[in-house]
Amino acid sequence: MTFSLQTRRNTITQLKRTDLDVLIIGGGITGAGAALQSIASGAKTGLIDMGDFGSGTSSRSTKLVHGGIRYLKTFDVTVVADTVQERARIANVAPHIPHPAPMLMPIYQEPGATFDLFAAELAMDLYDRLANIQQGQYAHYMLDREAVLARIPNLAEQHLIGGGVYLDYINNDARLVIENIKEADELGAMVASHLEALEVIHADNGKAIGVKVHDHLSGEVFTIHAKILLNTTGPWADDLRHSEDQPLLRPTKGVHLVVDDSVLFVPQPIYFDSGLQDGRMIFVIPRAGKTYFGTTDTDYQGDLKHPTVAIDDVDYLLNVINIRFPEAQVSLSNIEASWAGLRPLLAPPTSNTHVDLQPLVDLIHQFEAGATTQSQVEALIADLAKKHAAPSTVSRGYEVISEPDGMLTIAGGKLTDYRKMAESAITVIRERLLTEHGVHTSQIDSTHLQVSGGHFDPSTVLDSLDYFARLAEDAGIPRTQAHQLAQRFGSNIGRVLRYAQSGAAPGLSLGETASLRYSVFEEMALTPVDYMLRRTNLILFHADTAENIAGPVVAEMARLLEWDDLETEAQLQRLLNVMSESALTTLKREHQ
Amino acid sequence: MTFSLQTRRNTITQLKRTDLDVLIIGGGITGAGAALQSIASGAKTGLIDMGDFGSGTSSRSTKLVHGGIRYLKTFDVTVVADTVQERARIANVAPHIPHPAPMLMPIYQEPGATFDLFAAELAMDLYDRLANIQQGQYAHYMLDREAVLARIPNLAEQHLIGGGVYLDYINNDARLVIENIKEADELGAMVASHLEALEVIHADNGKAIGVKVHDHLSGEVFTIHAKILLNTTGPWADDLRHSEDQPLLRPTKGVHLVVDDSVLFVPQPIYFDSGLQDGRMIFVIPRAGKTYFGTTDTDYQGDLKHPTVAIDDVDYLLNVINIRFPEAQVSLSNIEASWAGLRPLLAPPTSNTHVDLQPLVDLIHQFEAGATTQSQVEALIADLAKKHAAPSTVSRGYEVISEPDGMLTIAGGKLTDYRKMAESAITVIRERLLTEHGVHTSQIDSTHLQVSGGHFDPSTVLDSLDYFARLAEDAGIPRTQAHQLAQRFGSNIGRVLRYAQSGAAPGLSLGETASLRYSVFEEMALTPVDYMLRRTNLILFHADTAENIAGPVVAEMARLLEWDDLETEAQLQRLLNVMSESALTTLKREHQ
Repeated sequence: MTFSLQTRRNTITQLKRTDLDVLIIGGGITGAGAALQSIASGAKTGLIDMGDFGSGTSSRSTKLVHGGIRYLKTFDVTVVADTVQERARIANVAPHIPHPAPMLMPIYQEPGATFDLFAAELAMDLYDRLANIQQGQYAHYMLDREAVLARIPNLAEQHLIGGGVYLDYINNDARLVIENIKEADELGAMVASHLEALEVIHADNGKAIGVKVHDHLSGEVFTIHAKILLNTTGPWADDLRHSEDQPLLRPTKGVHLVVDDSVLFVPQPIYFDSGLQDGRMIFVIPRAGKTYFGTTDTDYQGDLKHPTVAIDDVDYLLNVINIRFPEAQVSLSNIEASWAGLRPLLAPPTSNTHVDLQPLVDLIHQFEAGATTQSQVEALIADLAKKHAAPSTVSRGYEVISEPDGMLTIAGGKLTDYRKMAESAITVIRERLLTEHGVHTSQIDSTHLQVSGGHFDPSTVLDSLDYFARLAEDAGIPRTQAHQLAQRFGSNIGRVLRYAQSGAAPGLSLGETASLRYSVFEEMALTPVDYMLRRTNLILFHADTAENIAGPVVAEMARLLEWDDLETEAQLQRLLNVMSESALTTLKREHQ
Repeated sequence: MTFSLQTRRNTITQLKRTDLDVLIIGGGITGAGAALQSIASGAKTGLIDMGDFGSGTSSRSTKLVHGGIRYLKTFDVTVVADTVQERARIANVAPHIPHPAPMLMPIYQEPGATFDLFAAELAMDLYDRLANIQQGQYAHYMLDREAVLARIPNLAEQHLIGGGVYLDYINNDARLVIENIKEADELGAMVASHLEALEVIHADNGKAIGVKVHDHLSGEVFTIHAKILLNTTGPWADDLRHSEDQPLLRPTKGVHLVVDDSVLFVPQPIYFDSGLQDGRMIFVIPRAGKTYFGTTDTDYQGDLKHPTVAIDDVDYLLNVINIRFPEAQVSLSNIEASWAGLRPLLAPPTSNTHVDLQPLVDLIHQFEAGATTQSQVEALIADLAKKHAAPSTVSRGYEVISEPDGMLTIAGGKLTDYRKMAESAITVIRERLLTEHGVHTSQIDSTHLQVSGGHFDPSTVLDSLDYFARLAEDAGIPRTQAHQLAQRFGSNIGRVLRYAQSGAAPGLSLGETASLRYSVFEEMALTPVDYMLRRTNLILFHADTAENIAGPVVAEMARLLEWDDLETEAQLQRLLNVMSESALTTLKREHQ
């Protein structure tokens, strides 16, 4: 089944003349999951995204299907139980994507530590029980100080008292999005990227009946009609809602940085307190010869479409890394790649946000006049902050909001919860399609709705991936790359390999050629950035390779997509800009 | 062994001419525990208190040896593990005092709930494991909604989803103090109440070598010398330290109210969220036909010597009670007794308290000028509050501080930790006595240092108390009161009963007579308030009895202590004032 620039043209024609049951606006992980469930339920489903699928937030995560052990610090056991259950379900429906990665948590005896050694052991024990992890390969275990240092010799020794290892999962966030999208497409959803929703269109009775959209490729503006609009635009959710409403979201920015593992080596993912007594924990994760670390979590008020890595973000993360790895001396110049994303966090509920600031204003005047003490002001701040619901505790939750005009908005949530969030929305949608429009849909079990590439037995993942890799080897692709392709494409490997039959493109290996052609024809990769940043993660974890093959990739895409020279040059330039931004070229020039 | 007004005179004579090894200033539970450990170690020990023992803070607690299950909300498992271990040790050294009381925690499904049902069950399971509570009589168990309501029919039904029962312990805080004090006295410590430390006296080299004290009974001012001063004055700790130092403490006030159980009946102690989304939990505890509830937790800046119950405290607690018991309609007029105490909470550490307020001042000016939004101000408040260490999380810890002049100060801590706090201080003291003064002391095991009244086998508490009660019955005291005396005095019952041999005092029962005379001669009860508020809790839980026997108690004490008419009248007046304050007479007049 092709899913490409060409099918996009047909889809747009269809979108123009169909009265959809459901139009999903936003093709991140939430929208992708919702599209799959919606079409599987039998609803006439469309999905649009203003850019590439997952390009906004869902390709910019820590790239873990994280169980959230830190929530045990606040004894949010229900959250952890739900999260680890969802994680298991993701591993079932997308068995080629998450893979288990035992996480080492070193414990330091220091003020503000999230867990001491005793609490860490209890937390991990509880975590295993919640995740139903039996004794054996993946059950947690504790390490003494010497054992931690034996594994990670470059770790800071001062105040280190031991550590524990518990099960977490590595994810490929962008591919989880595209595999959901592809499956939805396969089942008949009308899906198109680079279509931006400009505004919601209302009937005379005030009900939302469609959106005016702008096709970024053709420049055309047209209308898509649907019985129900589902707003899954993540951090942009407020833009599509009535501007006079209280904002639902309060996005924060999260930054990750990548260095070569010759600069900073860790043998397995590790997770520790920042050491700055700010209540934050940081991941350091090895990947394909690189090591990446993050994340930051700062209130964001800048341009939602283009969050960037600032020097403060770099300083913060390098500070943490150099505290925990004193000999590494990682500096800005070592950073090979980076990404900045926005978390679509729920703003504290309105009922809690109304804090009367007048007493503070009065007290500040007294403070300036010397009529009160700093500690009085601090006491009032602490009081006010208590009233102001703490975002860190409520923020990872999500809501499905029925807007006054009937649009549904999914706000908040974390990546691991995407299936559940989609399910919540689809439940409301099915009910409304039935009662308001007489449209019958089917109840489906989304925990068994396998995504594209994931159509194989989840209980035999390693064997299946080996088999897919062998198929690639049989097609003439060297072993290492064969395994990469098997992981990247899962059960679609057969379709990928058909693109190897016509031989390698100039400057590209046979495997890379097949991968690129498959992504262009069957994954709606429309630009070199789509391919090199999201269909693959070449820009993030293979910066050197990316530089080498940038030209050949652009050339091959120009051939496949019939670009003229002007377009080809523009696409190359855009790719180089993205690579340069990822490599923090400007920051390096300004701050070195 | 007598311990009375008469022995106090001898003790003061001794204190004047002895160079003590250790002088403990403050006879609350921390000082009392420290005195016992110090004298048991062989150090020449003195202890003074500016009022009665335990009168400041240690008689004003919730009267539980609380395991602190709420700390599991923040996964402070080490705190909980330590606390439940200490609790078991207290039950060993003072077996007549704490008694097990399974606590019912109803769970409501509401915003800001501390635990949901699932988390509550896990928390109680973890709590039992930490406390090493085996399956059986005292292991936790869960109740469904109907079972909770069957037990407590007047409990609010809305949003109630169930509950759990876990083991907690009822305490008699003031008696735990006096039994430690009496044991210390018995072992040879020089202990006197109503001796106020006015100031620390220093040698030429700046080292603290004693205190100037004021005898509140005689009016005399004199000096007590000691090699080491231990400041266990709780909320007053900063008063004795150098005034220019950063305050160690940030006291908060806790209020409890008592009503008759015909107004509010609970069959067992219960513990629930306030229902006000303020993150606080409230106890409701039955005791001797009364029900008391609390506590509040508010920053306190008033007179440290005399915290009082304010109308805001009453409003807060009645609000909570009437939310949870909608039919009870408890009002100010129902309150029979009350108490207000100060928690000696540690101030956040200096390094964290310095918050730069300038950005807030600037932003407030912008806010007033309309140049910024409320949410910007709130975001900054949240940020500042994060920097300002949250008192609720660190505040229950304690520190033993070596002051620049050599004085040791124990600051912070909770009642249940008194033995451990004392042990920490004594460890430092023994080391310093040896290295600085060549004084050898013995290592003792304070977990086996039984307090006065507790000299019996802790594994047979019920049998022993029955036996003590039988002795009282044999002395002619009716069964109910015999059991009260057994619980009050434990293994000292024989000494108590000797005071029954000369018959009842006018207006007092035989048991009350024996109890009063014992307290006067062997528990240093110097005033009717000492007896009726701390040696017994007549004013708190038997307000009607207290009113009836106030005159006879004063008359008998006047006889025993040889007061003239003027003194007798003054003591009666002081007692009536305390009873009136406990009954909130003034508040009732002003607000009804």
